[in-house]
Amino acid sequence: MANRIPVAVIAATGSVGQRFVQLLDGHPWFEVVALTGSEGRVGQTYEETCHWMLTDSMPECVRNIPVVPSTPEAANVPIVFSALPSKYATEIEAAFAHAGVGVFTNAGAYRRDPTVPILVPEVNADQIELIPIQQKEKCWPGFIITNPNCTSMGMTVALKALDEAFGVLRAFAVSLQAISGAGYPGVASLDILDNVIPFIAGEEEKVEWEPRKMIGKVVDGQLKLADFQLSVHTNRVAVSDGHTVCLSVEFEREPDLREAVEVLSQYQAPECARDLPSTPDPVVFVHPDQDRPQPRLDRLTGRGMTTVVGRIRPDPLFHLKMVVLSHNTIRGAAGGSIYNAELMVNEGLVVN
Amino acid sequence: MANRIPVAVIAATGSVGQRFVQLLDGHPWFEVVALTGSEGRVGQTYEETCHWMLTDSMPECVRNIPVVPSTPEAANVPIVFSALPSKYATEIEAAFAHAGVGVFTNAGAYRRDPTVPILVPEVNADQIELIPIQQKEKCWPGFIITNPNCTSMGMTVALKALDEAFGVLRAFAVSLQAISGAGYPGVASLDILDNVIPFIAGEEEKVEWEPRKMIGKVVDGQLKLADFQLSVHTNRVAVSDGHTVCLSVEFEREPDLREAVEVLSQYQAPECARDLPSTPDPVVFVHPDQDRPQPRLDRLTGRGMTTVVGRIRPDPLFHLKMVVLSHNTIRGAAGGSIYNAELMVNEGLVVN
Amino acid sequence: MANRIPVAVIAATGSVGQRFVQLLDGHPWFEVVALTGSEGRVGQTYEETCHWMLTDSMPECVRNIPVVPSTPEAANVPIVFSALPSKYATEIEAAFAHAGVGVFTNAGAYRRDPTVPILVPEVNADQIELIPIQQKEKCWPGFIITNPNCTSMGMTVALKALDEAFGVLRAFAVSLQAISGAGYPGVASLDILDNVIPFIAGEEEKVEWEPRKMIGKVVDGQLKLADFQLSVHTNRVAVSDGHTVCLSVEFEREPDLREAVEVLSQYQAPECARDLPSTPDPVVFVHPDQDRPQPRLDRLTGRGMTTVVGRIRPDPLFHLKMVVLSHNTIRGAAGGSIYNAELMVNEGLVVN
Amino acid sequence: MANRIPVAVIAATGSVGQRFVQLLDGHPWFEVVALTGSEGRVGQTYEETCHWMLTDSMPECVRNIPVVPSTPEAANVPIVFSALPSKYATEIEAAFAHAGVGVFTNAGAYRRDPTVPILVPEVNADQIELIPIQQKEKCWPGFIITNPNCTSMGMTVALKALDEAFGVLRAFAVSLQAISGAGYPGVASLDILDNVIPFIAGEEEKVEWEPRKMIGKVVDGQLKLADFQLSVHTNRVAVSDGHTVCLSVEFEREPDLREAVEVLSQYQAPECARDLPSTPDPVVFVHPDQDRPQPRLDRLTGRGMTTVVGRIRPDPLFHLKMVVLSHNTIRGAAGGSIYNAELMVNEGLVVN
Repeated sequence: MANRIPVAVIAATGSVGQRFVQLLDGHPWFEVVALTGSEGRVGQTYEETCHWMLTDSMPECVRNIPVVPSTPEAANVPIVFSALPSKYATEIEAAFAHAGVGVFTNAGAYRRDPTVPILVPEVNADQIELIPIQQKEKCWPGFIITNPNCTSMGMTVALKALDEAFGVLRAFAVSLQAISGAGYPGVASLDILDNVIPFIAGEEEKVEWEPRKMIGKVVDGQLKLADFQLSVHTNRVAVSDGHTVCLSVEFEREPDLREAVEVLSQYQAPECARDLPSTPDPVVFVHPDQDRPQPRLDRLTGRGMTTVVGRIRPDPLFHLKMVVLSHNTIRGAAGGSIYNAELMVNEGLVVN
Repeated sequence: MANRIPVAVIAATGSVGQRFVQLLDGHPWFEVVALTGSEGRVGQTYEETCHWMLTDSMPECVRNIPVVPSTPEAANVPIVFSALPSKYATEIEAAFAHAGVGVFTNAGAYRRDPTVPILVPEVNADQIELIPIQQKEKCWPGFIITNPNCTSMGMTVALKALDEAFGVLRAFAVSLQAISGAGYPGVASLDILDNVIPFIAGEEEKVEWEPRKMIGKVVDGQLKLADFQLSVHTNRVAVSDGHTVCLSVEFEREPDLREAVEVLSQYQAPECARDLPSTPDPVVFVHPDQDRPQPRLDRLTGRGMTTVVGRIRPDPLFHLKMVVLSHNTIRGAAGGSIYNAELMVNEGLVVN
Repeated sequence: MANRIPVAVIAATGSVGQRFVQLLDGHPWFEVVALTGSEGRVGQTYEETCHWMLTDSMPECVRNIPVVPSTPEAANVPIVFSALPSKYATEIEAAFAHAGVGVFTNAGAYRRDPTVPILVPEVNADQIELIPIQQKEKCWPGFIITNPNCTSMGMTVALKALDEAFGVLRAFAVSLQAISGAGYPGVASLDILDNVIPFIAGEEEKVEWEPRKMIGKVVDGQLKLADFQLSVHTNRVAVSDGHTVCLSVEFEREPDLREAVEVLSQYQAPECARDLPSTPDPVVFVHPDQDRPQPRLDRLTGRGMTTVVGRIRPDPLFHLKMVVLSHNTIRGAAGGSIYNAELMVNEGLVVN
Repeated sequence: MANRIPVAVIAATGSVGQRFVQLLDGHPWFEVVALTGSEGRVGQTYEETCHWMLTDSMPECVRNIPVVPSTPEAANVPIVFSALPSKYATEIEAAFAHAGVGVFTNAGAYRRDPTVPILVPEVNADQIELIPIQQKEKCWPGFIITNPNCTSMGMTVALKALDEAFGVLRAFAVSLQAISGAGYPGVASLDILDNVIPFIAGEEEKVEWEPRKMIGKVVDGQLKLADFQLSVHTNRVAVSDGHTVCLSVEFEREPDLREAVEVLSQYQAPECARDLPSTPDPVVFVHPDQDRPQPRLDRLTGRGMTTVVGRIRPDPLFHLKMVVLSHNTIRGAAGGSIYNAELMVNEGLVVN
């Protein structure tokens, strides 16, 4: 742990910020040396100003770190993890990239930017070739890499594995999403107890588009969206963590069930993303029981980084039905961005 | 209330049986005079043997009725409402029909029988023309009429209204089902707290088939299934009552949104089913808010008999997406069968 | 319904305000003619500005009422029901009383005022003799009457009935309170799903004091607190409506169980409060089952106005243990204040 | 891990049995070599017959162990952990003790036996001196040691620490208990969603008595109950794991708050129980926040073995109020019995 890379968490006191802090505690490559927050918090220690809400207690090593403003000068590190709300992210994250910092962000602000990859190492590690293009176009010595929307996350891993083998044409996806995906305080308890909310603002549009970008290809320096089409319904349910997605998929070539199970079970990240500290093990777990995956029982598979798939069965309209589960605040947020940073460091693309 | 028709509830002590008893309390046409139960309960009063679980207290008028065996002789009424589990229903319901009784059942035992209608008055009142065929074929002076599976219920009303106007070709449906649909004790609390169960045994098969029978036509005395195809995923969520269904539909003729809203809002039961005591008012309520229907807020619309639809919007693959809600233990079970009995009485098809 | 008294709801768009509007719909004596709200809402109709959150839909008759400022001139009625937050209530409610209006409030602002009764008609209807004293002291032609904290409510009815018969000396009370008690949005879903919060700010102090004021006596124009002492723990649990209280009570004279059951079952409001539109029927329901009351099953007893008691049994330290349930947003808030207004009108103490 | 003691889990397929298997996986002293089950399961492997319900997946090392009958001959080990239901425990556990086996049980069957300690090492390690008396009286070469009821557990640790310092006289305790305490399937979801059940059969009697036995003393070979008196109310709430207890305590000598906090924070197990593999660290954690402990956030403190106390404050009737939390299936069941076995091995009282 001697020569770890100093990193900062931007907007460290919110729910995603806390998850970054928790997952970086004891990380073999990264050491949290700076935490940023809004003006009112600056100068207080993290322990004083942060209402810690995770099950594990606040790591000892961050308690006395004083909160600093969200500027590259104050943070003074080569890598930052950003938990900024999207409305602040556009400007602040650009300032960091402009100052030469590698920004790994959970915010959606740059996901539609054609030079900013929505990176999931086991899906599109090759899209890091967009980074020099981004740097050139934006005149940034640093860069910005985003992780996907938490609902896009798991289904994109499953679709990628299947697409390589059978060619995805079309898919229906209906999500049953955890309340932690809405941040804190987020969903009011009166709205979700004994209830379902069949609407999440802006979510369906994101989930119908992001997987196509992630599974797309960079051709002549330009990102080309994957060809398949998605139809998505999103719902909020009374689950703390773990997004469940019911998926029906049509392929170019109809797989039989056994083939599909094999393709998913044996799916591997590209070589460069296989042995990183956060590499999921396995990448995809195909649960053999007929009533799984279930969020309470399966969300922590592979320390919350694995995509869990189950109930692979024939679909009367398309080819296959299945259920996909992914931990929304670990894999679909902080853990995903940390894995992204590991990939970039491993590829020698972060200047320390 | 003077000359009400005497009726019995078969298997009156379970959760659906209790709902029959509750909804029949004060009914203008029907009077509960007999309650049947399993051997161990026979001879005790309903109050003594029934562990009442509904919010309203047990109706006064049934408390002292002694439980009798589930035979036509013991019940001695022209109409029975059956809450039998399917495995007992086959034999016991046939015995009642054989004895000349009109059986209105929530059990699934006869739903696949081509002469037994799965009756939803606002959808297929015309299918009562199967009854004489059923009686002839089975040599029954009485008859059996079933209500649909609770998940088929609401979506079939929506599909029927849309099919008449635009011709349904294909639909995807994903359910988020209430725990009361599994009876009592049903789902263990440890299985559903902070969780989703993406599997309900036998459910998807039923919901992919029943709507086609209900929207089918009787041609030359034979029921012909509707032509459209369905793909269904079913899930259990932590909701007490009210099944929510996310629906994507493809039509022969693409409707615009305004047309679809109008068709649904103005949908009416056939003349013969419009002014019965349980006729839903409205038949379909199209909720104008972007985040509705929600089970906790909307399940009791129209005293639990109305189908609530919302979020009608374009679908990138098919034509329309929407959300459908129906109260599973009122409309999808006891209330539905009572409405069926009203229709049959009104048509003069029950011999009192 | 011809000559109903015109009334206004102050702060009508919040959760308690909505409950007032709902419960006043169709009230035989009162007609809602004005609804007040904060500056940003003034001028919009109630339907436009109010995010309605109750199960029953918004009453037709209020939809087009334009929201007016919270002043006596704008409301222009002899009776107002106030759902103001306590911090605004002090000033605004005084302005109404000063203008001659009878104010029935759910706010806590004046509960500690020795001339303002915390009124529960079946407990302390006699305390309305404080009103002339209040009017004289404050130079108000109108007056203010509060209802109790929602957790004090049910246990005070039980303690009052028992106190009259056996003399209460001391009591322990531990609450399990519904989330609706915290308003909307109130408790974050992440804080209460699969959880208990054993702390509600300021609540224990209120519940240890209010019952003593309510069961106190007015002697020579001065309210004297009841002598008994209370120790209270308050908890928030994942229940939508209905506060449950575990109660252990010590008496001057030890009752046997049968006596205690009888005293509670037969408890009556004073003559003047017995036949009002909102009089609970029964005042107290002693549930015979060993596992009741339960909030989901029993909160709507007596249209939500009845106090439900159960599990009366010996206490190894004090004399009796029992469980008390009361609907916190009906009896413990809007419904309670409406009952108070009915009492005052019946006593001829409201100038129309 | 070379010379671990072979152990068996009796009734290994139920929910407590699974927790034993999970917590023993990788234990430094014990190795699970036998698993017993009911007749219908004998001969199948554990993986085949056990419906595993815990979050962590079934340990590899037990999957292929064949289930054997619950007899000493079939198990053939010096130590067994029993998850038997109480009705079977009386006979089967005696058979093991009779055969020379050390039985560590979660069943309540022997808790009232004056020679069987209800052992909690940090509370009453000294009560193992009952074992030779038990062995002599029962003519058992082996012995039986129970862990307490899961609700007695945490509050007894707190009461013990406080009793030593200030002398406990009387206490009120109200529990808010997790559903996992009722086993599987246990509580029906329809009974607990949006609800509280203020009754648990037989529970209050146990919790009013067991702490007095645990904090009692062995005098002249006889266990003398502690002198204090308890009054207990027990409730079931919608929490998966973790029992919360609201406690009001009266002492011989009134402590100030700071003293009480110190006494609890610094409480240590007796020397002999301090450095065992399952020794909680800390024994008691006094949470500094005003709204803690909370089951979801604090139940895993000290790997689920620590007693968490919070909200220590004055009580208007007794001396102190506080809230106590303990993990009911780890500390209050399987984990507690494993800690007991460690103590006995360490004391040289198990013959290997």
